[in-house]
Amino acid sequence: MLETKKDIKLEQLQNADLHQYADLYKDELLKEVIPFWEKYSIDNQYGGYFTCLDRQGNVYDTDKFIWLQGRQVWTFSMLYNKVEKKEEWLDIALHGAKFLLENGRDEEGNWYFSLNQKGEPLVVPYNIFSDCFAAMAFGELYKATNDDLHKEVAVNTYNNILSRQNNPKGKWSKVYSGTRELKNFSLPMILCNLSLLLEEVIGKEVVDEMVPPLIEDIMTNFLNKEHGIIMENVGANGAFCDSFEGRIINPGHGNESMWFLIDIATRYNKPELIKQCEEILIKTTEFGWDKEFGGIYYFLDIKGHPTQELQWNQKLWWVHIETMISFAKAYKLTGNEKSKEWFIKLHDYTWNHFRDEEYKGEWFGYLTREGQPLLEAKGGKWKGCFHVPRGLYELWTTLK
Amino acid sequence: MLETKKDIKLEQLQNADLHQYADLYKDELLKEVIPFWEKYSIDNQYGGYFTCLDRQGNVYDTDKFIWLQGRQVWTFSMLYNKVEKKEEWLDIALHGAKFLLENGRDEEGNWYFSLNQKGEPLVVPYNIFSDCFAAMAFGELYKATNDDLHKEVAVNTYNNILSRQNNPKGKWSKVYSGTRELKNFSLPMILCNLSLLLEEVIGKEVVDEMVPPLIEDIMTNFLNKEHGIIMENVGANGAFCDSFEGRIINPGHGNESMWFLIDIATRYNKPELIKQCEEILIKTTEFGWDKEFGGIYYFLDIKGHPTQELQWNQKLWWVHIETMISFAKAYKLTGNEKSKEWFIKLHDYTWNHFRDEEYKGEWFGYLTREGQPLLEAKGGKWKGCFHVPRGLYELWTTLK
Repeated sequence: MLETKKDIKLEQLQNADLHQYADLYKDELLKEVIPFWEKYSIDNQYGGYFTCLDRQGNVYDTDKFIWLQGRQVWTFSMLYNKVEKKEEWLDIALHGAKFLLENGRDEEGNWYFSLNQKGEPLVVPYNIFSDCFAAMAFGELYKATNDDLHKEVAVNTYNNILSRQNNPKGKWSKVYSGTRELKNFSLPMILCNLSLLLEEVIGKEVVDEMVPPLIEDIMTNFLNKEHGIIMENVGANGAFCDSFEGRIINPGHGNESMWFLIDIATRYNKPELIKQCEEILIKTTEFGWDKEFGGIYYFLDIKGHPTQELQWNQKLWWVHIETMISFAKAYKLTGNEKSKEWFIKLHDYTWNHFRDEEYKGEWFGYLTREGQPLLEAKGGKWKGCFHVPRGLYELWTTLK
Repeated sequence: MLETKKDIKLEQLQNADLHQYADLYKDELLKEVIPFWEKYSIDNQYGGYFTCLDRQGNVYDTDKFIWLQGRQVWTFSMLYNKVEKKEEWLDIALHGAKFLLENGRDEEGNWYFSLNQKGEPLVVPYNIFSDCFAAMAFGELYKATNDDLHKEVAVNTYNNILSRQNNPKGKWSKVYSGTRELKNFSLPMILCNLSLLLEEVIGKEVVDEMVPPLIEDIMTNFLNKEHGIIMENVGANGAFCDSFEGRIINPGHGNESMWFLIDIATRYNKPELIKQCEEILIKTTEFGWDKEFGGIYYFLDIKGHPTQELQWNQKLWWVHIETMISFAKAYKLTGNEKSKEWFIKLHDYTWNHFRDEEYKGEWFGYLTREGQPLLEAKGGKWKGCFHVPRGLYELWTTLK
């Protein structure tokens, strides 16, 4: 058993009902994590947000990554929409949105990957997830502002994503056409979440039309029937491909997608789908759990072969937070004790390893296999104001 | 002090002259490493080589990566040319060359990045280093065969590299033009080595013309004057760029390039350049050495900031082997005791950590920071029959 930290009083929560955990998540969100980003991330000189922040909140790099700019706009808009109508939160969201509107897109409306501090483009729009997080940002912001411009940007970006859906990498794809064409899980996964989040701007009809084929695709093609877990890359009709790409498992991805699907199943009243998601979640977590040091591996080869990814055995914040959300939602809906047990195990691991006891605020992102910080940063090129606050919010509201 | 393995009798070598190490390297090359690749890597069904080999030599993936196909052709050609005219070695080189000639290039003569087992293209020619290792392979093979076809392939590929030299990523570059254009160290570095190796096919005049601007570029632009070490990416005229890319140090790259430059300095009789290379080598190794666990880090930020590379603290085989070659060559030419001390320290670390005592043959490639195998494979997508045998050969012949 891992040593538990005194101030979060895990010992007494251990055998309690999960709803007693709710305040812990709420307090961490509102008293620690959000104040960190409010205090350290705002670039008052050039607009937008700094995300490369060290343990104490100092800026160590000023480049601006569109994924993370969009995600922070979303987070502050969401807090304003769902937690409290605080003007400061809306101002922070609008501050990032202004920077994105002024600098974020090329002439065709595609979102760049990164900009320098001033907003000048550094890396071209090769990555469709920049567009996904921009659409998410402006869709959520529109709910706060009712500003037609925000709606229009969200809708146009969403439609642009759909038009690129079957070839998301476009001219950037390095795959030779015809020999081995694999389909990647990331885009169908994120579209499940994005389509639901954007209902207010894209309309119920679009959501109703989008969602069933996405569920079908995930549960028929990406779900590996033999192992009961989600594959990152599959061939036509879900065929297994015995190659580095075809064998790779990203347990965090699989587990994150399960709460997106549980949300869909709740909305469309599909109890069977909830049960199926819980089974996948349990199998994936059993498969991905490090029995020696605890925590969930970043990547594993389904056949146990060496992975291409040298970071395979590291423990990443989002993997653990997203998995907790899925278990919390599953347990709430099914009452399955296995989900409760996994939730508690993950809760203990997460609070004991990712939370920084010395410099509170945002959590560590990257741990070694043994659970020590691999990088002491609180943010960087791929980690901003998103998974920790979204997770704390989802856990607080699910558990209460 | 690390525990030394009995059968390599390091204790008694510790205080000996470095030339007493020579046989250790020769035996490891000819009795362990080369037999491993001879036994396990040949694909008799479809041609070419398997490189994804586990600890015991079993094939765990059948894809064929052009870098590694070319490198193995080079290694066996080099052994045939320099060690012994063994027909088996030439046959193995020709076996890979046939596969490359039949399957390796697109219609414009660019080398693919990877093929499936049968030789059908998987990944398009986005990576100029496929071309570099193909040129190296056919240039060395030509010295063995005197076959004009091999010469022609080497020359055409070399010329194609030169024509792409100023824009090596071509249409695959994701950098937005004009905001921040950085020049990467890899290509000038490899051209130093490649141009010298290809002298017999490209001619002395081309080498004499190529080499001086490459030395100038490295020593003026890539060498950071303040720290005395080589930067991976620099702006125009060697300007430091305070960004993830601009701050990154790859000590193995810097150190490997020093023996390429020492070879050039030897050939052109430039003792001042040798001394300068040795200084860079010592500074880089001091900078990159892990004072807690030993070994040289894979990546470091020159300002001590978090790197983008999650594998930053891992210990890689090629980094250590290439650094040893540079120290051995430097010591041989300068007699500087510091180079000898570093050589012995690296020799101990390398033999105690990268060599697999249980299943001999090829060495481990990837260690954790603490020096334990991170992947148990002997080969993979980026590790084939190259750095270990080349290093053992260079060390044996330098030390003797």
